[in-house]
Amino acid sequence: MNGAESLVRTLLKGGIDVSFANPGTSEMHYVAALDKIDGMRCVLCLFEGVVSGAADGYARMAGKPAATLLHLGPGLGNALANLHNAKKATSPIVNIVGEHATHHIQYNSPLTSDIEGIAWPVSAWVKTSMTSNAVGPDGAEAIAAAQTAPGNISTLILPADTAWNEGGVIGNVPKIPKREAVSGEALSTAIELLKNDKKTLLLLGGSTLMEKPLEVAGRIKTKTGADVLAEGMNTRIQRGVGRLPIIRIPYPVPQALEILKDYQQIILVGAADPVGFFAYPGKPSRLAPEGCRVHLLATPAQECEQALEALCDGVGANNVMSELQKPNRPDRPTGAITLDTIASAIGALLPENAIVIDESVTTGRGFLPFTAGAAPHDWLQNRGGAIGLGLPMATGAAIACPDRKVICLESDGSGMYCPQALWTQAREGLDVTTLVFANRSYNILKGELAGVGAGNPGPTAKDMLSLDRPIIDWVAFSKSLGVEAVQVDNADDLCKAFEAAIAVEGPSLVEIVI
Amino acid sequence: MNGAESLVRTLLKGGIDVSFANPGTSEMHYVAALDKIDGMRCVLCLFEGVVSGAADGYARMAGKPAATLLHLGPGLGNALANLHNAKKATSPIVNIVGEHATHHIQYNSPLTSDIEGIAWPVSAWVKTSMTSNAVGPDGAEAIAAAQTAPGNISTLILPADTAWNEGGVIGNVPKIPKREAVSGEALSTAIELLKNDKKTLLLLGGSTLMEKPLEVAGRIKTKTGADVLAEGMNTRIQRGVGRLPIIRIPYPVPQALEILKDYQQIILVGAADPVGFFAYPGKPSRLAPEGCRVHLLATPAQECEQALEALCDGVGANNVMSELQKPNRPDRPTGAITLDTIASAIGALLPENAIVIDESVTTGRGFLPFTAGAAPHDWLQNRGGAIGLGLPMATGAAIACPDRKVICLESDGSGMYCPQALWTQAREGLDVTTLVFANRSYNILKGELAGVGAGNPGPTAKDMLSLDRPIIDWVAFSKSLGVEAVQVDNADDLCKAFEAAIAVEGPSLVEIVI
Repeated sequence: MNGAESLVRTLLKGGIDVSFANPGTSEMHYVAALDKIDGMRCVLCLFEGVVSGAADGYARMAGKPAATLLHLGPGLGNALANLHNAKKATSPIVNIVGEHATHHIQYNSPLTSDIEGIAWPVSAWVKTSMTSNAVGPDGAEAIAAAQTAPGNISTLILPADTAWNEGGVIGNVPKIPKREAVSGEALSTAIELLKNDKKTLLLLGGSTLMEKPLEVAGRIKTKTGADVLAEGMNTRIQRGVGRLPIIRIPYPVPQALEILKDYQQIILVGAADPVGFFAYPGKPSRLAPEGCRVHLLATPAQECEQALEALCDGVGANNVMSELQKPNRPDRPTGAITLDTIASAIGALLPENAIVIDESVTTGRGFLPFTAGAAPHDWLQNRGGAIGLGLPMATGAAIACPDRKVICLESDGSGMYCPQALWTQAREGLDVTTLVFANRSYNILKGELAGVGAGNPGPTAKDMLSLDRPIIDWVAFSKSLGVEAVQVDNADDLCKAFEAAIAVEGPSLVEIVI
Repeated sequence: MNGAESLVRTLLKGGIDVSFANPGTSEMHYVAALDKIDGMRCVLCLFEGVVSGAADGYARMAGKPAATLLHLGPGLGNALANLHNAKKATSPIVNIVGEHATHHIQYNSPLTSDIEGIAWPVSAWVKTSMTSNAVGPDGAEAIAAAQTAPGNISTLILPADTAWNEGGVIGNVPKIPKREAVSGEALSTAIELLKNDKKTLLLLGGSTLMEKPLEVAGRIKTKTGADVLAEGMNTRIQRGVGRLPIIRIPYPVPQALEILKDYQQIILVGAADPVGFFAYPGKPSRLAPEGCRVHLLATPAQECEQALEALCDGVGANNVMSELQKPNRPDRPTGAITLDTIASAIGALLPENAIVIDESVTTGRGFLPFTAGAAPHDWLQNRGGAIGLGLPMATGAAIACPDRKVICLESDGSGMYCPQALWTQAREGLDVTTLVFANRSYNILKGELAGVGAGNPGPTAKDMLSLDRPIIDWVAFSKSLGVEAVQVDNADDLCKAFEAAIAVEGPSLVEIVI
C-alpha cells in the first residue's frame, strides 16, 4: 500500500467519503488510488475556488468535512478566498494539497512555492507529510483537527514521493475533544441578567440557529421578554413555519445601531460582540450602545445548545411556549421586477425543505421578512465576506443533500467570481436552481462610496462600479456550461420560470433583469 | 490631500499609469481619488486572477509595473496563483491591497484576515501603511522594490483610514539599484570554457531572449561552435525572421535528458541549472548529464546583456555573423484538425509584430518549430506553471501595446481558470485573438499519470481528467462575455477564422475542436 492509498483509506475510515477535486501531476497517485478503493465520491471542479466553496456548503449541510484535492501552492491559492469564508463559517474541511517530491523541492522548479505559508492564514492545522508511512497518521490528525469545535480547516501537504512510495499505514483518527461546557459563573450571570428588568438581547450565532436551540431560545424570550436576534451573517439558520422567527442584525451600520440602541444588556450565545462589517469615518466599529453590558455566555466552540437549555431552565422557562412561525406567504407578485416583487416571488414559491444559499448582496437585503412564513427551510449566508461563494456553496450543499432542492440566490457581480461551479452542477446533475440578480453593477459599492464619505462618484469611479459594458448574457453563459437557463424581466415571468425550475430535478438558472 | 490621493500621485510620479482593479468598500477612497487626478488608466476586472495575470502581461511588454487594486486578504488570495506566475517570470508588479481601518482590525469582522501572511509567499516586499502621511512614501518604496532587478512583486497594504485621512504626502521613488555586473572570474572562466574543445551549451534565460542579446549569443555560437538553448519556460522570447532561432529545453524529462545528454559544459546566462518541472519516480530532478560542468555566468538579476557582450568580445566573436532566421513559413494547412495542422495554421498566418501568449500546454508542444520562420514576434510563456494565466496575460499585454496584435493560444482546461478576462477584453476593445484548443480533457494529466508510474487509469481517474461531461460551448461562453467567437473543426475553416479574426481590430475567439 503506497502513501496515497493509505490516505484515501484513512479518510474513509474517518468518515470522509466526498472529495472536491482539481488535481495535477503531483496528485496523480492519489487519483490512481481512488480507482483501487471503493467509497470515495470524487467531484471534479474546473477551478479551485469551486472546490473550497463546495466543501464549505457540504460541511454546513452534512455536518462533517469533505476533503479537497488541490494542486500545490497555486491551487491552494485559488481556493483561498472560499477557504477564508469557510473558516469564518467554522466549516470543517480537510485540504489535501499536492507538493513536489521531497527531494525535488530544493530545485525551485516553476510550481515550487511556500505552501505552508499560503495555508496558515486560513488553516487551524497545517502539516507536510515527510514519509509515506506518516501520511495516514497525519491524515487522521487532520480529520480530528477539522472536527474539533467549532469546526476548522486542516491542510495536509502531500509530497509526491510520500504518495507514491510503499509503506503506507492507515491512520486512526484521534478522539475528537468534547466541546467545553460553559462556566457556572457565565451561566448564573446570564440568568441574573435575564431576571433583572433591563432591556435585554439574546444574540445567537453558530450552532444555535438550528430548529431545536431556537425553540429553546423562544421559550426564554416568552418567559423573560428578552429579544432574540441572529448575527449579521450566519452559517445556517433553520427558518419557516413551526420554527422561531428570528431576524438578523442589518448590514448597514446606521440600521444596526438603530436596532441595538435601546439594549442595556446583550447576552452572546455562539455569537461575537457585534461589530460593523467595515469601518466608516465617524461611525463606531462596535455596534452595542454605549454603557450596554455585553455578557459572553458561550463561544462558538463551547456547548451552546446545552447553555441555552440551562439558561431556559434557570429562568424557569421549561414549560412555557415558544411563539413559533405560522404559515404566512406573500402573494404571488405581478408587474415589474422590483426588490419587493423578487422577494415576494421567492417567499410565495420557496419549496418545502429547500436549502437557500444567499449571496444576494444588495438585492436580497429584504428577502428574510418575505420568506419567514414559508415552509421550513435552511438559509445559508456568506460569513467571510469574500464574494464568489454562492454558486460553489450551492454545489456542495446539493452533494450533501441529494433529496433536497437547493435555491441559490446570486448577485451578478459575485456570481462572476466562481461561475465554473455551474459546470460541476451540470456534470453531477445537481438539483440547484440559481436566481441571478442582474443589476449589472457592483451595486453595494455605490452605497459604500457614499458611506465612507468619498463623495459623489465621477466618471472613473462610476466606471469601476458598473458591469454593463458589455452586458453579461447569463443565459448563454449558463447554457455554455451545461445548465439550462432563461431570462425574465417581469414578476409574472419570474414566477413562471422559478416554478418551472423547481418542478424539474436538476440544475437550472433564471437571470432576473433588474 | 488624503492618503489615497497621495498614493495615486506617487504612483503617477513613479511612472505607473495603469491600474488593474477589482475594488471593494475598503478601496473606495482610492477609487474616488482616481476621479480627482488625471493620468491613471483604470481597467476593471471581474475577478482578481484576471487582475494579477493582466499585470504580469503588462509588465512583460511595457517593461514597467502596473498597479493592481485588490480587496483585502481574499482579493489578494484570488490574485495569488497569477502572482506566483508573475514572481517566477520576474515581472514587476505593485499590489495595492485594501485593509480595514487600523482601529477596526482588532474586531475580527468577516473580511479580517492576515493579509501580510497571504502576501509574503508571492512578494519580495510587503508593508502595511499605518498613517496617511506614510502612504505616499511607502508607495514610493514599493515602486522601487518592484523595479529592483530582476523584477519583483511589491504588496502595499492600505488600511481604509490611512486612505481617507488627510495629511497625504507624495513619495519620492528611491533610486533603483543598478544591476550587479558579473564578476571578472565568472567571465574569464566562461571564456576559457568556450575556448576548450568540450561540447558546450550556452543556456539563456530572463532578459537575454530579446533580439539584441540573442544576436550576440549567435555570434558566440558561430565563433565557438557552442549550442544556444533557452530554458523550458520563458518570460519573453523575440523570435521570427532576422532573429537568432532558439529552441527551448523540452518539458518531458526523457526528451530534456536526451537533448542535454552530450554536453560536457553548460554556461548559464540569466538561466538556472536546468531541472524537471516535476519529479518522477526513478528519474533525476537535475537535467544536466552526470559529470557535466555547470557554470553560472550571470543570474537573472545581474547584467546579463553586458555579460554576453563581454563574452562575445572575450572569445573574439565581435566581427563574426550570427546565423539569423530566414523567412520560412509552413504551407497553409488543409484537412483534419491535428496538432500539426494547428501549428501550421499559426505558422502560416501569424501577423508581423504579434505578441503570442502561449498557454497551449500539450496542444502547443510543437508550435515553436512551425513558427520559427514567421515574421518577427514576441512569445510569452507561463513560467510559474499555475494554469489560468493565458487570457489575463493577453489582456495586460494588449493594454501595454495597443498597436500590436495579441494572439492568445489557450487550452480549454487552463482557459476555464480565469475566463472572466474575456469580459475585460470586450470592455476595453482589446485587439486579442484567442485560439482555444478544445481537446475536452486535462490532456497533460493523461501523460503525467503514466509518467509518474501510477498505472492505467480506471474509471474514477479517467473521470478526473475528462472535460467532456458536459462539453463546454466556448463560442456561447465567449459571446456571453461580449467577445465574438466561432467554432471550427477542420484546418481550412481554422485558417479562414484565424485570418478573419486577425483582419479585424478587437477581441475575438476561435474554438478549435480537437
